Amino acid sequence: MNVLKVSSKSSANSVAGALAAAIRDEGESEIQAIGAGAVNQTVKAIAIASGFLAPTGVSIFAQPTFEEIEIDGEERTAIRFKITSKKD
Amino acid sequence: MNVLKVSSKSSANSVAGALAAAIRDEGESEIQAIGAGAVNQTVKAIAIASGFLAPTGVSIFAQPTFEEIEIDGEERTAIRFKITSKKD
Repeated sequence: MNVLKVSSKSSANSVAGALAAAIRDEGESEIQAIGAGAVNQTVKAIAIASGFLAPTGVSIFAQPTFEEIEIDGEERTAIRFKITSKKD
Repeated sequence: MNVLKVSSKSSANSVAGALAAAIRDEGESEIQAIGAGAVNQTVKAIAIASGFLAPTGVSIFAQPTFEEIEIDGEERTAIRFKITSKKD
């Protein structure tokens, strides 16, 4: 599965479009965010994608978990959002 | 239903405890957050609460939506998280 990587500078609308496409194609997706700004953009993207998918009867659900990752030799804590979907 | 209000200064652990208690009692809950810092604390609280509930076979799912609210006569955009649960 493709993991969408979101930063504080990511456009919530663009991430929402990519997320909605992944849900339509595969029914689920994953998003990784590091830092408060990135987490905020991710949550906005999920809310926007919900609006994109609602007219097709699809609801999406997020399950955030902590993930330890290494960037440039430094340990960082990321949030990984598992996104699943359900059709009415 | 009780709505948990989270700010950027809220302790993620305390919110997680309140959320886990609400899920145990009612099976669902709602959280309101205004601003990136508050959204980040909310997501961390959901991840922590998932860990509290996992040993009892309960998974939780977040559905964020935008909500327009008025604070001191000013229009603000909040994120409202609907939290539902499922038992294995």
